Amino acid sequence: MKTKQTNKLWGAAFTVQPSEAVIQFTSGRDVASVPAADAALLAYDLWVNKAHCVMLAKTGIIPVSDAAKLLFKIAELDKLAQSGNFSLDSSKEDVHSNIESWLTEKLGIEVAGKLHTARSRNDQVVTDMKLYMRDQVLVYVKNSIGLAHTLLSLADAYKALPFPGFTHHQHAMVTTFGHVLAGFASMIVRDIERFKNWFTLHNTNPLGNTVSYGTTFPVNKTMTAELLGFDGPDHNSLDAITNRWEPESDLGFSIATLMNHLSLIAETLILLSTPEFGMVKL
Amino acid sequence: MKTKQTNKLWGAAFTVQPSEAVIQFTSGRDVASVPAADAALLAYDLWVNKAHCVMLAKTGIIPVSDAAKLLFKIAELDKLAQSGNFSLDSSKEDVHSNIESWLTEKLGIEVAGKLHTARSRNDQVVTDMKLYMRDQVLVYVKNSIGLAHTLLSLADAYKALPFPGFTHHQHAMVTTFGHVLAGFASMIVRDIERFKNWFTLHNTNPLGNTVSYGTTFPVNKTMTAELLGFDGPDHNSLDAITNRWEPESDLGFSIATLMNHLSLIAETLILLSTPEFGMVKL
Amino acid sequence: MKTKQTNKLWGAAFTVQPSEAVIQFTSGRDVASVPAADAALLAYDLWVNKAHCVMLAKTGIIPVSDAAKLLFKIAELDKLAQSGNFSLDSSKEDVHSNIESWLTEKLGIEVAGKLHTARSRNDQVVTDMKLYMRDQVLVYVKNSIGLAHTLLSLADAYKALPFPGFTHHQHAMVTTFGHVLAGFASMIVRDIERFKNWFTLHNTNPLGNTVSYGTTFPVNKTMTAELLGFDGPDHNSLDAITNRWEPESDLGFSIATLMNHLSLIAETLILLSTPEFGMVKL
Amino acid sequence: MKTKQTNKLWGAAFTVQPSEAVIQFTSGRDVASVPAADAALLAYDLWVNKAHCVMLAKTGIIPVSDAAKLLFKIAELDKLAQSGNFSLDSSKEDVHSNIESWLTEKLGIEVAGKLHTARSRNDQVVTDMKLYMRDQVLVYVKNSIGLAHTLLSLADAYKALPFPGFTHHQHAMVTTFGHVLAGFASMIVRDIERFKNWFTLHNTNPLGNTVSYGTTFPVNKTMTAELLGFDGPDHNSLDAITNRWEPESDLGFSIATLMNHLSLIAETLILLSTPEFGMVKL
Repeated sequence: MKTKQTNKLWGAAFTVQPSEAVIQFTSGRDVASVPAADAALLAYDLWVNKAHCVMLAKTGIIPVSDAAKLLFKIAELDKLAQSGNFSLDSSKEDVHSNIESWLTEKLGIEVAGKLHTARSRNDQVVTDMKLYMRDQVLVYVKNSIGLAHTLLSLADAYKALPFPGFTHHQHAMVTTFGHVLAGFASMIVRDIERFKNWFTLHNTNPLGNTVSYGTTFPVNKTMTAELLGFDGPDHNSLDAITNRWEPESDLGFSIATLMNHLSLIAETLILLSTPEFGMVKL
Repeated sequence: MKTKQTNKLWGAAFTVQPSEAVIQFTSGRDVASVPAADAALLAYDLWVNKAHCVMLAKTGIIPVSDAAKLLFKIAELDKLAQSGNFSLDSSKEDVHSNIESWLTEKLGIEVAGKLHTARSRNDQVVTDMKLYMRDQVLVYVKNSIGLAHTLLSLADAYKALPFPGFTHHQHAMVTTFGHVLAGFASMIVRDIERFKNWFTLHNTNPLGNTVSYGTTFPVNKTMTAELLGFDGPDHNSLDAITNRWEPESDLGFSIATLMNHLSLIAETLILLSTPEFGMVKL
Repeated sequence: MKTKQTNKLWGAAFTVQPSEAVIQFTSGRDVASVPAADAALLAYDLWVNKAHCVMLAKTGIIPVSDAAKLLFKIAELDKLAQSGNFSLDSSKEDVHSNIESWLTEKLGIEVAGKLHTARSRNDQVVTDMKLYMRDQVLVYVKNSIGLAHTLLSLADAYKALPFPGFTHHQHAMVTTFGHVLAGFASMIVRDIERFKNWFTLHNTNPLGNTVSYGTTFPVNKTMTAELLGFDGPDHNSLDAITNRWEPESDLGFSIATLMNHLSLIAETLILLSTPEFGMVKL
Repeated sequence: MKTKQTNKLWGAAFTVQPSEAVIQFTSGRDVASVPAADAALLAYDLWVNKAHCVMLAKTGIIPVSDAAKLLFKIAELDKLAQSGNFSLDSSKEDVHSNIESWLTEKLGIEVAGKLHTARSRNDQVVTDMKLYMRDQVLVYVKNSIGLAHTLLSLADAYKALPFPGFTHHQHAMVTTFGHVLAGFASMIVRDIERFKNWFTLHNTNPLGNTVSYGTTFPVNKTMTAELLGFDGPDHNSLDAITNRWEPESDLGFSIATLMNHLSLIAETLILLSTPEFGMVKL
């Protein structure tokens, strides 16, 4: 159906209409099969839209009057999204197109179209993902700090309780249970450091890099960096846009290391609570 | 053979003599089958011996006169090792026992035995490994800095050379070859940061933790930390000794990420030097 | 709240009521946060219930009259499930408890309770997972066969089309495009073999092993094996129940290898369709 | 130095002489820094040379008289290698060049050069690696069978010894120690199956594929397959030569799975031999 095809972002590149299976496959990850995924990116994409819109107006790339209309409508959509009253339509490919489509419907292509000046879906998706991961990092940091506090409080409470020091599961020397618990805390403190390193490496702003090669519009990446809580703009637009695995990989590795520590703590407590050991009662 | 058995560190625990295959297997990693491994640890173990000896004397745990004899002989052995004239004997289990055995031969058990006061093979091996890995980190940092410099020089040289900007291997926009090369440098700079994080997380001193539970001798871990270039003592002796994978895992992950970047750089250059592309000539 | 607690399978083990967060966490994977997961296991758990019920009746462990009532109701639930009219309640912990609870509501504990004779949630979940993975294996096999056929048809069509043979992206010898495509098919054929090995290793029946140590009831594992399409009963009940990673790991590795092949095929086609190569037009 | 350069296989491609560091780096893996690696491939490369030589003569590609001289000299070199009297020279790049160079020295380029008819280093190295890995697979299979036998004998000996059946380290039901040991054997039997699958997937002959695209010489790949113990020739020369990771990856995964099982067995025995459990005494 021709009408449907022209709605597709990539429609122009194909002389033959792609099959329904291809449409489902390519839209799948963003909005169709995993509702959790789009909910996760929606709030961040709206934030990115706001920051980009403010910057476009402040730098004179688009008129302030259009920016005002856009910001008003993005705020309305944000409220809808937060109250669960905006659901993504998989026939519109992804969260970015869904938002654009809604704004176009409300404001007309003349105004809504201006929002996409000096950006592409490429820098939008990288920016969204960074914001999403950054929040995940913060959740891990917060919970790890809570766990370290608890372990240190318990270590303090049991600092004088004698405990067998094991070597290869055999008794070696006498220690205290507080020593064991403080050792657990010590691991978690390193995990917190490791999560913090994510900020040093990746909390930079890719918005405005467009498809990888920047833009001739006088965008202000420092301004959007501030509005989005980034430490500053990225150093190289090509590296920033093509690097779609390193922030993910760093985060995944940090989580895996934390999980190893949690597993060691859990295994130790399970062992100590066996009838044979009988040293810990949960 | 009884004489042989009593030479084994763990000999006392067995009522039956272990088979030759078991001896080979347990000594294998350190000195027998991979000569490179022992050469790698030998210099570090001698350094650790020196630092420990100095600390034992300064804190009055052993007499200064004995420490002097020990330091003199360790220096002699260091010279032998550096000139390749000290080879490890696999029947003595590992690098630590080989050094102890040599010192005992030269100075007698009365003096040589004092060196092992207030430490165990556990903290020795963890300390050796940290020193070894730290040097490896420095090699990676140094070479990565060299590579980043080279890439930035080339980026500068080609900063005005027009170059097709690709998206999914299709032409997108015009950029410069300098832009591409500066993007490569940008990746390597993050790799350098990642290697530096190893220092923050792991450059702490485990020596003096003995088997995991410390010692009643008045050891000065701050002093050995300074002598060995560590930022300070470890926070928890149990965590420090049982943590035999995290510094390795952090280093391995940092190397793997660097290798991914090198692979991307190499693949790009290979592609650009195909007859079809013909854009780069090495 | 006492009433709520007594509904929990593990309720009796706790003197203090677990917090809501713990309940959400422990029920999470099965039914709460990932609706796709429970939908995936529901059909298999109903199948397992049917097979177990038939076996219990045929071996005389439960009366045929009760079995008939149970099978009738399980069939009814199956129909509800298939039409999407049975939704899992996360306060009932998992898919097994949800089904049991529904049956108890319809038939009373006197009859419904008999279905859980000579089994535990341990063998149920292992059996469900195996049935689920087996179907996934079959989907991969089917699609891989389809892909191999397509590649071989194309290889046949292009068997005489001259094509540059590359070595390290440089021209080496002349070949045909059919040769390249047949090479792709050759990889996929190995992937199919690898998936088939999953059957040899894991298509055995764990039902009736209960918590790991079997049961004194005269269960017939060969009968349930036949009803569930397994090649026979497992060899060792302890190994079968505690082995919760090997079928998953084998499947994951086979998928990863296939993905590597698909990635190589895709990358080759992308490269050949660049303007510079211009050899393939999709 | 020109003389040195012309000895390099790839020399002709460079207008400038590569630095010593590049030579060391590229020859490193095969013969320079890891002596174990070349020793591992030497015997297999000699076998491959013999099989190829016989095939060349039988198919009439080279004269029988030259083949006889070559086989005589390869046998002589084999004897030298087995007695440890042939050491590889790292300036000759790899094991293949070392052998060729030795034969050329003994027989002259006129005769020795004929051995490299209808093959390349590409198919040689893939063939060598397959033969090497196949022997490794056999070692793993043999030792795994030995371990399974031992475990089953012990299981038989302890089949009536009552033993606590644990669930999550808590006592659940009574079983026998034989049951536990037979469970261990059951895992190892699957490992043996997994190693055997390597043969089904990879025991095929890549020799004669040359650089990937075959040869116009009338090579008989079925004959060399028989001489080298392969089940038959590879199906596609391009796939066979470019596939340098799949046999390695399959073997590595099989070893990793076995190691997980050995780790589980060891951990169980360590736990049962703690003073608290006191159930096993090694």
